[in-house]
Amino acid sequence: MTPTLSNGIAAKQGIAIVSEAVCEAVVGRADAFSAIENVFAAMASGDAYNFPVVREAIGHANALYGFKSGFDRAGMALGLKSGGYWPDNTSRGLTNHQSTVMLFDPDTGQAKAIVGGNYLTAVRTAASSAVSIAHLARPDAKVLGMVGAGHQSTFQLRAAVEQRQFERVIAWNPHPEYLPKLEAVCNELGLPFEAVDRQQLGAQADVIITITSAFEPLLMRDWIKPGTHIACMGTDTKGKQEVDPELLAAATVFTDEVAQSISIGEAQHAVAESKLTAEQITPIGQVINAAHPGRTSDDEITLFDGTGVGLQDLAVASTAAKLAIEKDQASWIQL
Amino acid sequence: MTPTLSNGIAAKQGIAIVSEAVCEAVVGRADAFSAIENVFAAMASGDAYNFPVVREAIGHANALYGFKSGFDRAGMALGLKSGGYWPDNTSRGLTNHQSTVMLFDPDTGQAKAIVGGNYLTAVRTAASSAVSIAHLARPDAKVLGMVGAGHQSTFQLRAAVEQRQFERVIAWNPHPEYLPKLEAVCNELGLPFEAVDRQQLGAQADVIITITSAFEPLLMRDWIKPGTHIACMGTDTKGKQEVDPELLAAATVFTDEVAQSISIGEAQHAVAESKLTAEQITPIGQVINAAHPGRTSDDEITLFDGTGVGLQDLAVASTAAKLAIEKDQASWIQL
Repeated sequence: MTPTLSNGIAAKQGIAIVSEAVCEAVVGRADAFSAIENVFAAMASGDAYNFPVVREAIGHANALYGFKSGFDRAGMALGLKSGGYWPDNTSRGLTNHQSTVMLFDPDTGQAKAIVGGNYLTAVRTAASSAVSIAHLARPDAKVLGMVGAGHQSTFQLRAAVEQRQFERVIAWNPHPEYLPKLEAVCNELGLPFEAVDRQQLGAQADVIITITSAFEPLLMRDWIKPGTHIACMGTDTKGKQEVDPELLAAATVFTDEVAQSISIGEAQHAVAESKLTAEQITPIGQVINAAHPGRTSDDEITLFDGTGVGLQDLAVASTAAKLAIEKDQASWIQL
Repeated sequence: MTPTLSNGIAAKQGIAIVSEAVCEAVVGRADAFSAIENVFAAMASGDAYNFPVVREAIGHANALYGFKSGFDRAGMALGLKSGGYWPDNTSRGLTNHQSTVMLFDPDTGQAKAIVGGNYLTAVRTAASSAVSIAHLARPDAKVLGMVGAGHQSTFQLRAAVEQRQFERVIAWNPHPEYLPKLEAVCNELGLPFEAVDRQQLGAQADVIITITSAFEPLLMRDWIKPGTHIACMGTDTKGKQEVDPELLAAATVFTDEVAQSISIGEAQHAVAESKLTAEQITPIGQVINAAHPGRTSDDEITLFDGTGVGLQDLAVASTAAKLAIEKDQASWIQL
């Protein structure tokens, strides 16, 4: 018998192994965008849900370790992303964030694919803010503002500039010495780049992406002009914070998952200070599904709180496995 | 650089793949016993702990799916067992319980081994009751009573009979037509076998293993004679039950993990009926570590509530990976 996965992954040769290098080779930004848009839509329509997150300080190597998991009945993706944060890895020449995705056949429970998760985490996070820009930013947005210039920022930048006819990029980072990485990408893309201070960034940018590890507000409400769309992508843990809670009070707030947004996402602070309620936060999937109008005026500030959910990882890993198999780039094992 | 796992798994070739067939070939009962005894000891001494269990009815194929995970600093085992219960698998010629173990390097977070978990789940569960018999049953136990004759029961039987000089085996099963499977193992081992009713079983057995999927008491307190050791191995979910709560009230109760014992283990009922408190349940690791005396008289009834924890899976999978690599039976992949 040759079982075939409902999501199109042929299982005839056992478990597909999709390496980091193969993920990079086969998953483009358009693939990731489409996977993330679809899974956000499935979450909003009740076809996909995330399981409880496990996240533990293991008491060894200062590591944070855990799993994000879920099931997308629409995309037939079942599995988990396992991994975590090993801060001492840099000194070993390894990435601090280590991720591996396992996919299972929803029909039988058998392991179907093991997919490197490091590159995919970067592209799915970038696709998430890109989806928010596509659905929420003003159509005439011209200036992209980047807050943050770490590993993830170039992925964010590349995905964002494909969503609108941006004419220039401005950026700020707590460590200015990292900004040339963003500038190099802009040069490659033929986009003027300028390092600015945060007030300038707020005054000029039509779309802002924050992608830092901050624990304090980096952008104040009064610095942000009407009509701006802001994607807050850095806050994924209790205590982290990138923007003024007053900004969430003033904005129309969207998120990937409300439960995470109010507990570990950017909205945790505004909610804790009673400046925002969970009911005022809209899953972006509702906008994708046209169940919510999204932006309703040119002066409205829209804010997307991207917290990062396991279903995003499963969606892009499932895409990676499917493409790798189609292009004969997967290895196969038997368990 | 050739990273080496702290637990002895060489990582020079990437991720070790250890198939079900290789697990069966390399992991013997003594290996499993030793792995389980060590991890129970580590749990009791605070060197190993289980992370929260994720268990979800996914709303597809009637499946229950989830993860058990943890970290054993003593054995340097970090990882998870993923899988679940797919009741329709039998009609596809597949095992209903599907398990896969992933092991990670505690030093770097990198995936280090992927191990088939179906055979290992059976041997680790059998090793668990065997460890309880070794540490808690009367030294002169002669009659082994088996309640249950399903897939797990023959593993339980084989591991149990190695712990004492048993002279015969008696058994009962709700479906008597499965009992010949146990009888065949007894014939192979040269042990007399007899099918009995439950009262006879209680009156004659010195050691009893219950390994069923029951949701009601199968053994009543008054049927059990003084000095008996009982390993209740079937109850791993809210609502399941194998024995009379009065039996737990009368016995000295041990378990793998107290938190699971009182919530999803056999002790859930006695605790709910206020016949037992969490404080009266002893982690068996304390007996292994000689921090608790275990059995203190020939008349005492000892009861082990084996709920099954993720650390057991990691312990036997880690052993499987180590032995497979030593014997050059692992395959290798790169992610």
